[in-house]
Amino acid sequence: MKQDFKFHETTIRVRYAETDQMGVVYYANYLVWFEVARTEYFRNLGIEYSGLEKKGIYLVVAEANCRYKAPLKYDDQIRMVTILSYIKSSSLGFKYEIFLGDRLIAIGSTTHAFVNKEKKPVKIPPEVFQALGR
Amino acid sequence: MKQDFKFHETTIRVRYAETDQMGVVYYANYLVWFEVARTEYFRNLGIEYSGLEKKGIYLVVAEANCRYKAPLKYDDQIRMVTILSYIKSSSLGFKYEIFLGDRLIAIGSTTHAFVNKEKKPVKIPPEVFQALGR
Amino acid sequence: MKQDFKFHETTIRVRYAETDQMGVVYYANYLVWFEVARTEYFRNLGIEYSGLEKKGIYLVVAEANCRYKAPLKYDDQIRMVTILSYIKSSSLGFKYEIFLGDRLIAIGSTTHAFVNKEKKPVKIPPEVFQALGR
Amino acid sequence: MKQDFKFHETTIRVRYAETDQMGVVYYANYLVWFEVARTEYFRNLGIEYSGLEKKGIYLVVAEANCRYKAPLKYDDQIRMVTILSYIKSSSLGFKYEIFLGDRLIAIGSTTHAFVNKEKKPVKIPPEVFQALGR
Repeated sequence: MKQDFKFHETTIRVRYAETDQMGVVYYANYLVWFEVARTEYFRNLGIEYSGLEKKGIYLVVAEANCRYKAPLKYDDQIRMVTILSYIKSSSLGFKYEIFLGDRLIAIGSTTHAFVNKEKKPVKIPPEVFQALGR
Repeated sequence: MKQDFKFHETTIRVRYAETDQMGVVYYANYLVWFEVARTEYFRNLGIEYSGLEKKGIYLVVAEANCRYKAPLKYDDQIRMVTILSYIKSSSLGFKYEIFLGDRLIAIGSTTHAFVNKEKKPVKIPPEVFQALGR
Repeated sequence: MKQDFKFHETTIRVRYAETDQMGVVYYANYLVWFEVARTEYFRNLGIEYSGLEKKGIYLVVAEANCRYKAPLKYDDQIRMVTILSYIKSSSLGFKYEIFLGDRLIAIGSTTHAFVNKEKKPVKIPPEVFQALGR
Repeated sequence: MKQDFKFHETTIRVRYAETDQMGVVYYANYLVWFEVARTEYFRNLGIEYSGLEKKGIYLVVAEANCRYKAPLKYDDQIRMVTILSYIKSSSLGFKYEIFLGDRLIAIGSTTHAFVNKEKKPVKIPPEVFQALGR
């Protein structure tokens, strides 16, 4: 009876800088957008990721994946649907779907660990765990 | 008894632009390096990827993955070991390992399809297939 | 008898990817934002820059300049004020001011030439000239 | 009797990621290369810029400029000639020329201030001043 995590939707417009000479968006930029989506996912739950870092808690990336199903062009306005895929005491994962209109363009995922300034694993702060957890 | 594909090693020095406020390399940049590694992998076999595009043959990315094991810093000089993981009539895959000294920093993979200008799948040109295939 | 050109304001939020290990936005990214500002400047006058390129008309950059007065941080929400500084038969210039709240963060400028697919100068299309010119 | 500053030459190969849909290098990337050129300029004089930051001394950018004379393409191998244009007690400037073969592609300049961790101006460390200044 999975996934009663909240999902969040963010809109982004493709920048000229994000295209390459193939005339479409360069593949690494999807990971940049995933990070924008994470920031907005957190903000939507009342968590400022920048505030976490000020407290010395960092969310490092352990793994990233993206499957590219159709290309995107300059000035395309895309929707990113973000969902927490799991959460544990010191790690979590996100899934992302990118749409252009109703067309699914790409599917991605990232997993993350919470660490302190010395890059040692730390527990997710309780208020963050609670905000994310349902 | 597979994998007698050639592997190739490329060296890159981390640019300041590639770091982020965590003081380490931003995760999307590893995919940029994978592309540099592919270009050099091809060149090492006598194939200029830019020449393929001039003939109207493009190598699009279908999937990309990276596992991040340890962080990298500005000015680090890294080694990327690149190997062809498979090759078919119109697609292929690469694996990448990034090392700092002897320490394994990241492991990645990408899969690709060969397409024409209209983004339709095409067969890998025979001379490329041959150069890659052994 | 100055400047009765229209100005336009665009809002952007700083991405994590845009920071560097100094903890502030990396200087080259301001030029990426200037380009976002140009796209929105054109759109605000009813011109889609992507539409121009489809007709084979390209706006190439001849010069870019930026003066950095104060740093920007991740998640800062900035305002960019864009104004056409001049327009001639086949070239134009923009000025940009970046604000965080009321604080002036950076001042920039770019000059551009209109060229065709062969990179030869062409006249600005009359409808674009007219839309921009007042 | 000016300019007996040393100049330094760095070679870079254009990455696919650095191109845009116009088929040439995106204009902001020249500033990224300028920074690579600065790093190598310092290293050539026996200064590790990363070492300066470890001592709490940062070189922030006050102004950047680039004039683009001819486009660059993917896989082009460029030469960057870097020269110190001036040096004072707490600031300095660089000039850059980018060549493709013998053809001048772009001319740029940056000015910088030395600051401490709190972003307050500091004097250039004597050993750096000496190494740079002659």
